[in-house]
Amino acid sequence: MTGTVHLVGSGPGDPELLTIKARRLIDEADVVLHDKLPGPEILSTIPEGKREDVGKRAGGERTSQEYTNDRLVELAQDGNEVVRLKGGDPFVFGRGGEEMSHLAANGVDFDVVPGISSAFAGPELAGIPTTHRDHASCVSFVTGHEDPTKDESAVDWGALAATGGTIVVLMGVGKLPDYTAALREAGMDSATPVALVERASRPEQRVVTGTLSTIVEVTEETGIEPPAITVIGGVVSERETLAESA
Amino acid sequence: MTGTVHLVGSGPGDPELLTIKARRLIDEADVVLHDKLPGPEILSTIPEGKREDVGKRAGGERTSQEYTNDRLVELAQDGNEVVRLKGGDPFVFGRGGEEMSHLAANGVDFDVVPGISSAFAGPELAGIPTTHRDHASCVSFVTGHEDPTKDESAVDWGALAATGGTIVVLMGVGKLPDYTAALREAGMDSATPVALVERASRPEQRVVTGTLSTIVEVTEETGIEPPAITVIGGVVSERETLAESA
Repeated sequence: MTGTVHLVGSGPGDPELLTIKARRLIDEADVVLHDKLPGPEILSTIPEGKREDVGKRAGGERTSQEYTNDRLVELAQDGNEVVRLKGGDPFVFGRGGEEMSHLAANGVDFDVVPGISSAFAGPELAGIPTTHRDHASCVSFVTGHEDPTKDESAVDWGALAATGGTIVVLMGVGKLPDYTAALREAGMDSATPVALVERASRPEQRVVTGTLSTIVEVTEETGIEPPAITVIGGVVSERETLAESA
Repeated sequence: MTGTVHLVGSGPGDPELLTIKARRLIDEADVVLHDKLPGPEILSTIPEGKREDVGKRAGGERTSQEYTNDRLVELAQDGNEVVRLKGGDPFVFGRGGEEMSHLAANGVDFDVVPGISSAFAGPELAGIPTTHRDHASCVSFVTGHEDPTKDESAVDWGALAATGGTIVVLMGVGKLPDYTAALREAGMDSATPVALVERASRPEQRVVTGTLSTIVEVTEETGIEPPAITVIGGVVSERETLAESA
């Protein structure tokens, strides 16, 4: 009997932001394959005996995606009910798509259980709606941490600026100087409000705000560190309105 | 004693895709203010005695946003613990931002509980990752059902096409002929794959696929009806790969 692989999103890190389905599948699973991204509070609710960490090998090297793909197939073929627990949502910059294709190609039954993506929830938990009648009829998500095998310029920042909508950059700390410069060069107003949300939904969540021209300095001064999400656009001013009326 | 208002996302409609926190707050609430969007399966799990429908008035007219805003304040000031239950996520094209601002301006305590947005989950439950290493390093969300008080052309389809990323249109059935034409005029390849996902996560979920030039006809022939989500971009071909290997 071959088992099923459930590709499950764990949300932004708060165990109460797991879905009811995610909780049930974790509790019923024989094995839960995970990396560090679901966060310590969620991982600590899973018995150690059924956890398998594919985030790092002993030497500190990252486990290859190929290893994880093959391990999922192997565990299912041995008859295990397997949860592949992903941070946030499995399909939002999460390689869940690649894992799904590999399972399908190997004839392993699987399903996908969406999770709360920090793409939306990060800004939200900082009081920033990513869309708003007064500011943005469109929102675009990009990753600041691109696949190193891709050309440097896979993201067209000029086109994103031209949409006039909110721009959200996941894993957005490291390349903040690069893309804020690219957006200014593309003609985006340097006074456009920008926020960084560090460790969204965790007890230690922090938010800093500035503008397209000041945010790099603000981020350095406040020591914001990954993981953090960058929000660029008029919606960020909603947070300031709230702060004033609070 | 003034109560608290919890702006809670209910996800795409499957009761198991509620978060654990949403379920707890609904169960603990004195009053749950809702419209039809959370869907019948979720609404039927809430005792009728504490449900208040602000979706339609008796005559079939929509309740105004002003009424809902004021009712939230009134209920909290009367000492109730209030859940404002929104379909999907409160802040994704959901006016949660406006409700939050109104509560803040009236000194009412509130919090926001993210829900699974069908923006990501709709494509996902149809086997379509909105981002994928091979196809898209960016994804943009727009609504096909714009505020009628806005200028017709609030969405810049040309700029969206230029991003090269996946485009997801929520409430995307009615204006499908308009925006597929706009994207072709902006130079997007007419062979670009397109999918519509009707009633994502519900037992009656349906998916149809075509291209930028055929999808209007496919949608008419198959009788796809709102609510549905449109996905435009190379990622749609991932679903076809899956279907072939299944």
